[in-house]
Amino acid sequence: MMNDNLVRMTKQTFALGIDIGGTSTKLALVGASGDIAKRASFSTADCADEHEFFRHLFEKIVEMLRGGVEVKGIAAGAPSANEQQGTIENAANLPFSPKVELVKTVQERFGLPTQLVKDSNASTLGEWHFGAAKGMKNFMLITLGTGLGCGIVANGQLLGGEYGHGGEAGHICVVPNGRACGCGRFGCTETYVSATGLKRTVFDLMANTMTDSPLRSKSYMDMSSRHIFEAAQSGDALAKKTFEMTGEVLGRAIADMAAWFEPEAVVLSGGLAMAGDLLFLPTIDSLERHALAFHKGHKIKVLPSALGENDAALLGAAALIWNEHQVWVKGGVNKT
Amino acid sequence: MMNDNLVRMTKQTFALGIDIGGTSTKLALVGASGDIAKRASFSTADCADEHEFFRHLFEKIVEMLRGGVEVKGIAAGAPSANEQQGTIENAANLPFSPKVELVKTVQERFGLPTQLVKDSNASTLGEWHFGAAKGMKNFMLITLGTGLGCGIVANGQLLGGEYGHGGEAGHICVVPNGRACGCGRFGCTETYVSATGLKRTVFDLMANTMTDSPLRSKSYMDMSSRHIFEAAQSGDALAKKTFEMTGEVLGRAIADMAAWFEPEAVVLSGGLAMAGDLLFLPTIDSLERHALAFHKGHKIKVLPSALGENDAALLGAAALIWNEHQVWVKGGVNKT
Repeated sequence: MMNDNLVRMTKQTFALGIDIGGTSTKLALVGASGDIAKRASFSTADCADEHEFFRHLFEKIVEMLRGGVEVKGIAAGAPSANEQQGTIENAANLPFSPKVELVKTVQERFGLPTQLVKDSNASTLGEWHFGAAKGMKNFMLITLGTGLGCGIVANGQLLGGEYGHGGEAGHICVVPNGRACGCGRFGCTETYVSATGLKRTVFDLMANTMTDSPLRSKSYMDMSSRHIFEAAQSGDALAKKTFEMTGEVLGRAIADMAAWFEPEAVVLSGGLAMAGDLLFLPTIDSLERHALAFHKGHKIKVLPSALGENDAALLGAAALIWNEHQVWVKGGVNKT
Repeated sequence: MMNDNLVRMTKQTFALGIDIGGTSTKLALVGASGDIAKRASFSTADCADEHEFFRHLFEKIVEMLRGGVEVKGIAAGAPSANEQQGTIENAANLPFSPKVELVKTVQERFGLPTQLVKDSNASTLGEWHFGAAKGMKNFMLITLGTGLGCGIVANGQLLGGEYGHGGEAGHICVVPNGRACGCGRFGCTETYVSATGLKRTVFDLMANTMTDSPLRSKSYMDMSSRHIFEAAQSGDALAKKTFEMTGEVLGRAIADMAAWFEPEAVVLSGGLAMAGDLLFLPTIDSLERHALAFHKGHKIKVLPSALGENDAALLGAAALIWNEHQVWVKGGVNKT
């Protein structure tokens, strides 16, 4: 990390990337090649409302800009972002009013070009410009956390959908009449493939097999995907079977996705993707078995994120400042 | 239809559209607004090889151009088209050698700009420029014939996939471990939703229910989707149930598709789509039940093709001449 003096000395120009999450908000000065010169963060969860949030955010931005740092623009990734309006709307995990004018508020305060992008799109831009999908024209990012997030680049463009809700890969029906999903439907991808899905599979296996496991002594509330990962690493059969079943569903979902989009690669990120071979091997095996004839022979690559789990969205937001993107907007194409 | 004199008199400029199918090859002089001035066709099936095919094709083109008709370019839609190479490769239903140089051969003979596009993309271009999806930026065409064909426009571009095999909606797994598919996998969309899928559902219902039906007197070989359609129209319970089950699967597939792409509309074409309400009503009902929250309220339109069943590909090929399209090509974007 460069210190303030160094930043001043080099007179490098930066983009200010912001990653707004339910737990914390992170900021970074990002160079054109994705190098991070300075970081800051504060707790979003501790903010009472958007006013307190903006107070903290402005403080941190002022800190970032101290010493005459040259900044080309500010861009933020956030959940429930309305990219067209520059607002955050009905964000379930942020302590905000139903509609928060993020772009307008930041722009008025600092007089810098300001942009807002959905968090999943921010991570996708990060992988695209600085990570595992660098230079690709067709790829998909799947983020495996509590749920399953997704961003799609097709024909060299972020795919937004007609009303901005495209890329909901977590809510494809992979098992008709399967597990109940938070979205009100059944059998959605994320009920099987996510940290929560992993736990549900453990409980399914405990119910339906006789396999012994130390996981049987944990309650549903107490069990985390980390427990399952650690059990699998120490050779526990039930935990290993859980990862195999998760990879089986994920590989099949990717095979179907490839039938639609035919990406060059699928990048897996998020906590669950850190399980490495435990998840990747059964996923790649299942994809190969379920793939269409012209996708067999490992034509669709499955890659781990090349960015730190915490940096993809931050870097992706900054990439918005460094690169021109055509973002589809109802009624025309907006250059951003 | 205009006659030769009229064509000559008006000195209108045309695009020459060609639709190469396994049974017949159709040609038309198409004006900029999709008006067809002159038609011709010949039997593809009767051609012994590509040499005979080209002989017939050239004859018809010469006929079309007679009297000094001004033609801006020639474009053909064909199965197994390699759009990048301008070749038709390993076409199962054409009497061709493994690789036929269509663009080169036609271009050398007539000295006119010549293009080749996959048949499914040709129909998609037809609906986009002259049909039900006119002016849309995000839509999908589903063609229900013997199989299920598909073309996707996202962000205002034809979606081709990294290697030109995108949009294989017929081979999404809608029922894990379901019906065996010609592609070697199981539970693919087209094993349920197509003329063949409809027949398979009738046979499933005859096996698993006691419902009486005149369809029980037909063999698998003798039964066509038209028999099922006619039985349903005259009130046969088994045939009606068959359409309901087909719409149920199609609606669920569209709901999933909308989670990926969020199109403004899905256009249904092909023989099975001619069944009208029998297919559309259960499809729309199923889509509404399976749709994500933000797609409920009939946000994703399901529309019948606005072009004659036989004209979509013909008009779409011509649209290639009338309009600039960015077609994704590995290594760059080609203006065509």
